[in-house]
Amino acid sequence: MKSFTILILAIAVASTILAALPFALGHAEDEATPIFGGKLPDGYRDWGLISVAHEEGNLNDLRAILGNDVAIKAYREGKLPFPDGTILARLAWSYVPSEENNKVFGRVQSFVAGPAPDWYLQFMVKDSKKFAATAGWGFAQFDKDGKPADEAKLKTCFPCHQPFQAGDFVFTRYAP
Amino acid sequence: MKSFTILILAIAVASTILAALPFALGHAEDEATPIFGGKLPDGYRDWGLISVAHEEGNLNDLRAILGNDVAIKAYREGKLPFPDGTILARLAWSYVPSEENNKVFGRVQSFVAGPAPDWYLQFMVKDSKKFAATAGWGFAQFDKDGKPADEAKLKTCFPCHQPFQAGDFVFTRYAP
Repeated sequence: MKSFTILILAIAVASTILAALPFALGHAEDEATPIFGGKLPDGYRDWGLISVAHEEGNLNDLRAILGNDVAIKAYREGKLPFPDGTILARLAWSYVPSEENNKVFGRVQSFVAGPAPDWYLQFMVKDSKKFAATAGWGFAQFDKDGKPADEAKLKTCFPCHQPFQAGDFVFTRYAP
Repeated sequence: MKSFTILILAIAVASTILAALPFALGHAEDEATPIFGGKLPDGYRDWGLISVAHEEGNLNDLRAILGNDVAIKAYREGKLPFPDGTILARLAWSYVPSEENNKVFGRVQSFVAGPAPDWYLQFMVKDSKKFAATAGWGFAQFDKDGKPADEAKLKTCFPCHQPFQAGDFVFTRYAP
Protein backbone atom coordinates (compact mmCIF):
# COMPACT_ATOMS: atom_id res chain seq x y z
CA MET A 1 0.00 0.00 0.00
CA LYS A 2 2.95 2.32 0.77
CA SER A 3 4.31 2.18 -2.82
CA PHE A 4 0.78 2.80 -4.16
CA THR A 5 0.59 6.04 -2.08
CA ILE A 6 3.98 7.16 -3.45
CA LEU A 7 2.79 6.44 -7.00
CA ILE A 8 -0.36 8.56 -6.48
CA LEU A 9 1.75 11.35 -4.99
CA ALA A 10 4.19 11.20 -7.93
CA ILE A 11 1.31 11.38 -10.41
CA ALA A 12 -0.13 14.38 -8.57
CA VAL A 13 3.21 16.21 -8.59
CA ALA A 14 3.84 15.37 -12.26
CA SER A 15 0.35 16.56 -13.20
CA THR A 16 0.89 19.86 -11.43
CA ILE A 17 4.19 20.40 -13.28
CA LEU A 18 2.68 19.39 -16.62
CA ALA A 19 -0.34 21.63 -16.06
CA ALA A 20 1.93 24.59 -15.34
CA LEU A 21 4.23 23.92 -18.31
CA PRO A 22 2.09 25.22 -21.19
CA PHE A 23 1.61 28.51 -19.37
CA ALA A 24 5.34 28.82 -18.67
CA LEU A 25 6.24 28.09 -22.30
CA GLY A 26 3.54 30.42 -23.59
CA HIS A 27 4.78 33.18 -21.38
CA ALA A 28 8.35 32.62 -22.55
CA GLU A 29 7.44 32.74 -26.23
CA ASP A 30 5.54 35.96 -25.80
CA GLU A 31 8.46 37.78 -24.26
CA ALA A 32 12.19 37.48 -24.30
CA THR A 33 13.44 33.92 -24.71
CA PRO A 34 15.19 32.87 -27.93
CA ILE A 35 13.06 33.16 -31.04
CA PHE A 36 13.01 30.38 -33.65
CA GLY A 37 12.51 27.90 -30.78
CA GLY A 38 16.21 28.03 -30.02
CA LYS A 39 17.13 26.92 -33.55
CA LEU A 40 18.81 28.85 -36.34
CA PRO A 41 16.44 30.01 -39.09
CA ASP A 42 16.72 27.95 -42.26
CA GLY A 43 19.00 29.21 -44.99
CA TYR A 44 20.07 32.46 -43.33
CA ARG A 45 23.64 32.05 -44.62
CA ASP A 46 22.31 32.36 -48.19
CA TRP A 47 20.45 35.62 -47.55
CA GLY A 48 21.37 38.82 -49.39
CA LEU A 49 23.97 41.23 -48.09
CA ILE A 50 22.78 44.48 -46.50
CA SER A 51 26.13 45.89 -45.38
CA VAL A 52 29.41 45.29 -43.56
CA ALA A 53 31.05 46.90 -40.53
CA HIS A 54 34.00 46.79 -38.18
CA GLU A 55 33.60 47.21 -34.43
CA GLU A 56 36.73 48.07 -32.47
CA GLY A 57 37.21 47.85 -28.69
CA ASN A 58 36.03 44.81 -26.77
CA LEU A 59 34.17 43.46 -29.78
CA ASN A 60 37.04 43.80 -32.29
CA ASP A 61 35.16 42.03 -35.04
CA LEU A 62 34.32 42.21 -38.73
CA ARG A 63 30.63 41.79 -39.40
CA ALA A 64 28.19 41.29 -42.22
CA ILE A 65 24.49 42.03 -42.01
CA LEU A 66 22.28 39.80 -44.15
CA GLY A 67 18.54 39.92 -44.64
CA ASN A 68 15.78 37.63 -45.83
CA ASP A 69 13.85 38.61 -48.99
CA VAL A 70 11.36 40.75 -47.03
CA ALA A 71 14.24 42.67 -45.44
CA ILE A 72 16.19 43.22 -48.67
CA LYS A 73 13.07 44.45 -50.48
CA ALA A 74 12.23 46.88 -47.66
CA TYR A 75 15.78 48.25 -47.60
CA ARG A 76 15.94 48.75 -51.36
CA GLU A 77 12.56 50.47 -51.39
CA GLY A 78 13.49 52.58 -48.36
CA LYS A 79 10.41 51.21 -46.61
CA LEU A 80 10.17 52.07 -42.90
CA PRO A 81 9.04 50.68 -40.54
CA PHE A 82 10.16 47.23 -41.70
CA PRO A 83 7.18 44.98 -42.45
CA ASP A 84 6.28 41.93 -40.38
CA GLY A 85 8.30 38.95 -41.59
CA THR A 86 11.54 40.94 -41.86
CA ILE A 87 14.51 39.02 -40.47
CA LEU A 88 17.98 40.52 -40.17
CA ALA A 89 21.03 38.34 -39.50
CA ARG A 90 24.24 39.81 -38.13
CA LEU A 91 27.28 37.55 -38.53
CA ALA A 92 30.52 38.47 -36.75
CA TRP A 93 34.03 37.10 -37.04
CA SER A 94 37.11 38.12 -35.09
CA TYR A 95 39.19 40.80 -36.77
CA VAL A 96 42.55 39.29 -37.68
CA PRO A 97 45.45 40.47 -39.84
CA SER A 98 46.04 38.34 -42.93
CA GLU A 99 49.72 37.51 -43.06
CA GLU A 100 49.47 35.95 -46.49
CA ASN A 101 47.73 39.01 -47.93
CA ASN A 102 50.15 41.41 -46.24
CA LYS A 103 53.08 39.52 -47.74
CA VAL A 104 51.72 40.30 -51.22
CA PHE A 105 51.01 43.94 -50.42
CA GLY A 106 54.39 44.35 -48.73
CA ARG A 107 52.84 45.94 -45.63
CA VAL A 108 50.33 45.28 -42.85
CA GLN A 109 47.07 46.45 -44.39
CA SER A 110 44.77 43.48 -44.75
CA PHE A 111 42.33 42.38 -42.02
CA VAL A 112 40.07 39.43 -42.61
CA ALA A 113 37.42 37.30 -40.92
CA GLY A 114 38.93 35.01 -38.26
CA PRO A 115 37.32 32.56 -35.84
CA ALA A 116 33.77 33.33 -34.69
CA PRO A 117 33.34 35.07 -31.31
CA ASP A 118 30.64 34.13 -28.76
CA TRP A 119 28.33 36.72 -30.35
CA TYR A 120 28.76 35.05 -33.76
CA LEU A 121 25.12 35.30 -34.84
CA GLN A 122 22.40 37.75 -33.95
CA PHE A 123 18.94 38.02 -35.43
CA MET A 124 16.19 40.61 -35.35
CA VAL A 125 12.77 39.46 -36.44
CA LYS A 126 9.83 41.78 -36.98
CA ASP A 127 6.46 40.69 -35.64
CA SER A 128 4.55 43.74 -34.52
CA LYS A 129 2.08 41.73 -32.41
CA LYS A 130 4.32 39.08 -30.88
CA PHE A 131 7.05 41.54 -29.97
CA ALA A 132 4.90 44.62 -29.33
CA ALA A 133 6.75 45.32 -26.06
CA THR A 134 10.03 45.88 -27.96
CA ALA A 135 8.74 47.97 -30.87
CA GLY A 136 7.88 44.85 -32.87
CA TRP A 137 11.37 43.37 -32.84
CA GLY A 138 12.37 40.01 -31.40
CA PHE A 139 16.04 39.34 -30.75
CA ALA A 140 18.10 36.16 -30.81
CA GLN A 141 21.77 35.30 -30.46
CA PHE A 142 23.67 32.10 -31.15
CA ASP A 143 27.31 31.14 -30.67
CA LYS A 144 29.30 29.29 -33.34
CA ASP A 145 28.03 25.94 -32.09
CA GLY A 146 24.43 27.05 -32.53
CA LYS A 147 23.84 27.46 -28.78
CA PRO A 148 21.27 30.21 -28.11
CA ALA A 149 22.00 33.02 -25.67
CA ASP A 150 19.95 33.09 -22.46
CA GLU A 151 17.05 35.39 -21.70
CA ALA A 152 19.12 37.76 -19.53
CA LYS A 153 21.48 38.38 -22.45
CA LEU A 154 18.65 39.00 -24.91
CA LYS A 155 17.09 41.56 -22.60
CA THR A 156 20.12 43.79 -23.26
CA CYS A 157 19.37 43.97 -27.03
CA PHE A 158 16.45 46.33 -27.27
CA PRO A 159 17.74 49.04 -24.88
CA CYS A 160 20.78 49.41 -27.15
CA HIS A 161 18.65 49.65 -30.32
CA GLN A 162 16.10 51.98 -28.73
CA PRO A 163 17.86 55.27 -29.67
CA PHE A 164 17.47 54.39 -33.38
CA GLN A 165 13.76 55.05 -33.58
CA ALA A 166 14.15 57.00 -36.85
CA GLY A 167 15.53 53.88 -38.57
CA ASP A 168 12.95 51.55 -36.97
CA PHE A 169 15.49 50.57 -34.30
CA VAL A 170 17.97 49.10 -36.78
CA PHE A 171 21.59 50.32 -36.82
CA THR A 172 22.53 49.18 -40.31
CA ARG A 173 21.88 51.06 -43.53
CA TYR A 174 21.92 49.40 -46.91
CA ALA A 175 25.27 49.56 -48.77
CA PRO A 176 24.45 49.78 -52.49
CA MET B 1 37.35 68.92 -106.94
CA LYS B 2 39.42 69.61 -103.84
CA SER B 3 36.56 68.70 -101.50
CA PHE B 4 35.93 65.50 -103.51
CA THR B 5 39.56 64.43 -102.95
CA ILE B 6 39.21 65.06 -99.21
CA LEU B 7 36.01 62.96 -99.17
CA ILE B 8 37.78 60.05 -100.93
CA LEU B 9 40.68 60.30 -98.50
CA ALA B 10 38.27 60.38 -95.53
CA ILE B 11 36.46 57.27 -96.82
CA ALA B 12 39.79 55.48 -97.30
CA VAL B 13 40.92 56.30 -93.76
CA ALA B 14 37.54 55.34 -92.29
CA SER B 15 37.57 52.02 -94.19
CA THR B 16 41.04 51.19 -92.89
CA ILE B 17 39.93 51.90 -89.31
CA LEU B 18 36.71 49.89 -89.68
CA ALA B 19 38.58 46.98 -91.30
CA ALA B 20 41.03 46.87 -88.42
CA LEU B 21 38.32 47.15 -85.73
CA PRO B 22 36.96 43.59 -85.68
CA PHE B 23 40.47 42.23 -85.25
CA ALA B 24 41.21 44.72 -82.49
CA LEU B 25 37.97 43.84 -80.67
CA GLY B 26 38.48 40.11 -81.13
CA HIS B 27 41.98 40.40 -79.79
CA ALA B 28 40.76 42.45 -76.87
CA GLU B 29 38.04 39.95 -75.89
CA ASP B 30 40.48 37.08 -75.88
CA GLU B 31 42.85 38.82 -73.54
CA ALA B 32 42.52 41.59 -71.02
CA THR B 33 39.71 44.08 -71.73
CA PRO B 34 36.64 44.16 -69.49
CA ILE B 35 34.68 40.93 -69.35
CA PHE B 36 30.86 40.92 -69.50
CA GLY B 37 31.12 43.23 -72.53
CA GLY B 38 31.69 46.20 -70.24
CA LYS B 39 28.42 45.59 -68.39
CA LEU B 40 27.81 44.44 -64.84
CA PRO B 41 26.75 40.79 -64.55
CA ASP B 42 23.05 40.38 -63.78
CA GLY B 43 22.00 39.98 -60.19
CA TYR B 44 25.48 40.03 -58.63
CA ARG B 45 24.22 42.11 -55.66
CA ASP B 46 21.96 39.19 -54.66
CA TRP B 47 24.76 36.61 -54.63
CA GLY B 48 25.73 34.79 -51.45
CA LEU B 49 28.33 36.14 -49.05
CA ILE B 50 31.79 34.54 -49.04
CA SER B 51 33.55 36.80 -46.55
CA VAL B 52 34.33 40.36 -45.46
CA ALA B 53 37.59 42.28 -45.04
CA HIS B 54 39.12 45.62 -44.21
CA GLU B 55 42.05 47.03 -46.17
CA GLU B 56 44.01 49.85 -44.54
CA GLY B 57 46.49 52.21 -46.19
CA ASN B 58 45.68 53.82 -49.53
CA LEU B 59 42.63 51.61 -50.00
CA ASN B 60 41.08 52.23 -46.55
CA ASP B 61 37.91 50.36 -47.38
CA LEU B 62 35.47 47.80 -46.02
CA ARG B 63 34.72 45.04 -48.49
CA ALA B 64 32.44 42.11 -49.03
CA ILE B 65 33.15 39.22 -51.35
CA LEU B 66 30.09 37.62 -52.94
CA GLY B 67 29.89 34.64 -55.25
CA ASN B 68 27.45 33.18 -57.74
CA ASP B 69 25.97 29.74 -57.01
CA VAL B 70 28.90 27.93 -58.66
CA ALA B 71 31.35 29.86 -56.47
CA ILE B 72 29.45 29.34 -53.19
CA LYS B 73 29.11 25.60 -53.86
CA ALA B 74 32.82 25.27 -54.65
CA TYR B 75 33.80 27.16 -51.49
CA ARG B 76 31.51 25.11 -49.23
CA GLU B 77 32.76 21.85 -50.71
CA GLY B 78 36.37 23.04 -50.52
CA LYS B 79 36.68 22.39 -54.24
CA LEU B 80 39.89 23.69 -55.85
CA PRO B 81 40.57 24.76 -58.52
CA PHE B 82 37.28 26.64 -58.90
CA PRO B 83 35.18 25.21 -61.76
CA ASP B 84 34.46 27.11 -64.97
CA GLY B 85 31.48 29.38 -64.45
CA THR B 86 32.66 30.59 -61.04
CA ILE B 87 32.22 34.34 -60.63
CA LEU B 88 33.45 36.24 -57.59
CA ALA B 89 32.33 39.80 -56.90
CA ARG B 90 34.29 42.07 -54.58
CA LEU B 91 32.37 45.14 -53.41
CA ALA B 92 34.23 47.92 -51.59
CA TRP B 93 33.00 50.93 -49.65
CA SER B 94 35.05 53.61 -47.98
CA TYR B 95 35.77 52.95 -44.31
CA VAL B 96 34.01 55.61 -42.26
CA PRO B 97 33.29 56.01 -38.54
CA SER B 98 29.61 55.90 -37.67
CA GLU B 99 28.88 58.87 -35.44
CA GLU B 100 25.36 57.71 -34.68
CA ASN B 101 26.56 54.25 -33.63
CA ASN B 102 29.42 55.67 -31.57
CA LYS B 103 26.99 57.91 -29.70
CA VAL B 104 25.13 54.79 -28.54
CA PHE B 105 28.30 52.93 -27.59
CA GLY B 106 29.73 56.01 -25.85
CA ARG B 107 33.06 55.69 -27.69
CA VAL B 108 34.57 55.64 -31.19
CA GLN B 109 34.37 51.96 -32.10
CA SER B 110 32.03 51.58 -35.05
CA PHE B 111 33.17 51.76 -38.67
CA VAL B 112 30.69 51.27 -41.47
CA ALA B 113 30.39 51.27 -45.26
CA GLY B 114 30.59 54.81 -46.68
CA PRO B 115 30.56 56.08 -50.27
CA ALA B 116 31.95 53.75 -52.94
CA PRO B 117 35.58 54.32 -54.05
CA ASP B 118 36.74 54.12 -57.70
CA TRP B 119 37.49 50.42 -57.22
CA TYR B 120 33.90 49.82 -56.02
CA LEU B 121 33.37 46.56 -57.92
CA GLN B 122 35.78 43.88 -59.03
CA PHE B 123 34.98 40.53 -60.57
CA MET B 124 36.92 37.35 -61.21
CA VAL B 125 35.39 34.92 -63.66
CA LYS B 126 36.69 31.43 -64.27
CA ASP B 127 36.93 30.24 -67.85
CA SER B 128 39.90 27.97 -68.21
CA LYS B 129 39.98 28.24 -72.02
CA LYS B 130 39.15 31.92 -72.57
CA PHE B 131 41.51 33.13 -69.85
CA ALA B 132 44.16 30.42 -70.12
CA ALA B 133 46.93 33.04 -70.12
CA THR B 134 45.94 34.14 -66.59
CA ALA B 135 45.42 30.74 -64.98
CA GLY B 136 41.80 30.62 -66.17
CA TRP B 137 40.71 33.85 -64.48
CA GLY B 138 39.30 36.93 -66.20
CA PHE B 139 39.25 40.20 -64.28
CA ALA B 140 36.91 43.19 -64.42
CA GLN B 141 36.48 46.39 -62.46
CA PHE B 142 33.70 48.96 -62.41
CA ASP B 143 33.31 52.24 -60.58
CA LYS B 144 30.09 53.20 -58.78
CA ASP B 145 28.61 54.57 -62.01
CA GLY B 146 29.13 51.23 -63.75
CA LYS B 147 32.06 52.51 -65.83
CA PRO B 148 34.51 49.70 -66.58
CA ALA B 149 38.23 50.09 -65.87
CA ASP B 150 40.57 50.21 -68.86
CA GLU B 151 42.78 47.42 -70.12
CA ALA B 152 45.96 48.84 -68.57
CA LYS B 153 44.33 48.75 -65.12
CA LEU B 154 43.08 45.18 -65.56
CA LYS B 155 46.55 43.99 -66.51
CA THR B 156 47.62 44.75 -62.94
CA CYS B 157 45.12 42.23 -61.48
CA PHE B 158 46.68 38.87 -62.22
CA PRO B 159 50.27 39.68 -61.15
CA CYS B 160 48.91 40.52 -57.69
CA HIS B 161 46.87 37.29 -57.47
CA GLN B 162 49.68 35.13 -58.87
CA PRO B 163 51.35 34.33 -55.50
CA PHE B 164 48.14 32.58 -54.36
CA GLN B 165 48.51 29.52 -56.52
CA ALA B 166 47.61 27.19 -53.63
CA GLY B 167 44.15 28.81 -53.38
CA ASP B 168 43.64 28.91 -57.15
CA PHE B 169 44.79 32.57 -57.22
CA VAL B 170 41.96 33.78 -54.97
CA PHE B 171 42.74 35.74 -51.79
CA THR B 172 39.48 35.22 -49.96
CA ARG B 173 38.57 32.22 -47.85
CA TYR B 174 35.02 31.34 -46.94
CA ALA B 175 33.80 32.71 -43.59
CA PRO B 176 31.37 30.13 -42.20
